[in-house]
Amino acid sequence: MRTLLVIGIGTGNPEHMTMQAIGALNRADIVLVPRKGEEKAELAELRLEICRRYLTDPDTRLIEFDLPARDGSMPYREAVDEWHQAIADTYRTLLERHTAVDGKAAFLVWGDPAFYDSTLRILERLRDDPPCRIEVIPGISSIQALAASHAIPLNEVAGSVHITTGRRLAEHGFPDDAESVLVMLDGGLSFDKLELDRFEIWWGAYLGSKDEIAISGPLAEVAGKIRATRAEARERHGWIMDTYLLRKRSGNLSS
Amino acid sequence: MRTLLVIGIGTGNPEHMTMQAIGALNRADIVLVPRKGEEKAELAELRLEICRRYLTDPDTRLIEFDLPARDGSMPYREAVDEWHQAIADTYRTLLERHTAVDGKAAFLVWGDPAFYDSTLRILERLRDDPPCRIEVIPGISSIQALAASHAIPLNEVAGSVHITTGRRLAEHGFPDDAESVLVMLDGGLSFDKLELDRFEIWWGAYLGSKDEIAISGPLAEVAGKIRATRAEARERHGWIMDTYLLRKRSGNLSS
Repeated sequence: MRTLLVIGIGTGNPEHMTMQAIGALNRADIVLVPRKGEEKAELAELRLEICRRYLTDPDTRLIEFDLPARDGSMPYREAVDEWHQAIADTYRTLLERHTAVDGKAAFLVWGDPAFYDSTLRILERLRDDPPCRIEVIPGISSIQALAASHAIPLNEVAGSVHITTGRRLAEHGFPDDAESVLVMLDGGLSFDKLELDRFEIWWGAYLGSKDEIAISGPLAEVAGKIRATRAEARERHGWIMDTYLLRKRSGNLSS
Repeated sequence: MRTLLVIGIGTGNPEHMTMQAIGALNRADIVLVPRKGEEKAELAELRLEICRRYLTDPDTRLIEFDLPARDGSMPYREAVDEWHQAIADTYRTLLERHTAVDGKAAFLVWGDPAFYDSTLRILERLRDDPPCRIEVIPGISSIQALAASHAIPLNEVAGSVHITTGRRLAEHGFPDDAESVLVMLDGGLSFDKLELDRFEIWWGAYLGSKDEIAISGPLAEVAGKIRATRAEARERHGWIMDTYLLRKRSGNLSS
């Protein structure tokens, strides 16, 4: 049976790699490295840098391949479904071509495979053709890089933490029974749909990387600065990845 | 100004250490290592093992100290408040005794300092006496070790993830608008307060360590096995740390 090593590589700092991740990288017979494709050049380069820095086993081969493209003309859910199936089919072909029946292949995942990543769902589509065992190596996620950047705990004392997406925040508002809300995958700045003066924010972009930006404060006071900083950074880099924590303000505000 | 390095060391696998954490450990002038105190001997030993394995700078000194004890005769919140203040006072004394005014001290935190850990709150109590800069290095949390152990993503497609405590689950039930609920710090098995046949569970104990146990399935089917396994393991080790993910069952169940 083949072993698929799904390795979390952290969020843009090569030093986010754990010893376990480095060990797994070197246990692999092949490391599957997508060519740039839809990805940003800086991220693709960082993945190669991780391999250069930590891959010491001369028998491990990097296998570069072209990720199938998503069909932009189809409805979103359908397009994603077809796209994931096409990626799974690509993986199957690569595994059969480049690994023995008891071989090991590594998949490098940004952040942690447990949070908002499709690799595990795509590998499920192989449905044991070829027969595979999946081993997951956790990595530092952007959630954690955000908390580290601001030097804060994510939960209040014995409190709950709600992790959601920008889309859900925009559609459903701030969850009723939540205290600390982490917003991921926010294409815009969905906090703009909230009553700004009820919240505090801890925002971060390019977390973990040398370009990291962090801004925090009462949302009504810093929202403008975040909007401007985000627009400027996005313009300069050509892309942005950001995430943020929201909490209701305590103190003498009503409601 | 002193630098306080708050380092996440993972959940019981020394290989959870990131390169960044190893670097920070070696940048420190001192590493504060509590003597066993309230902690389990196995965990105290593991922390020393991490220092032995990764600390290569001969100038870094391990400073062992006795953690103040919590006053069991006081009401809980008051006792924790006094206890945290006593720990902060101990830290202040150790920093002044063992580091220069621009020195660096490392604090080793289980899991990630961002999740249900009091170190950052305790250090806040120093209130810049002595003046300090806090630097946080994220680590692999038990949440992530759980997901890795079961080889699952924590969120459903574009879904939310709610992280809460055993006490809150027991008091408030399964949160209304939540899909995936992670339960931490559960002294008992608070899932027993739920309607078992409405949920699926992914449970894990001693996550990341060589003694890791993982059980998953429809809650009504596996609850008994989890109860028995947990009781037996707790008896054998003298302690247990566990966490679990709950999801509403899909399919043809009503409500």
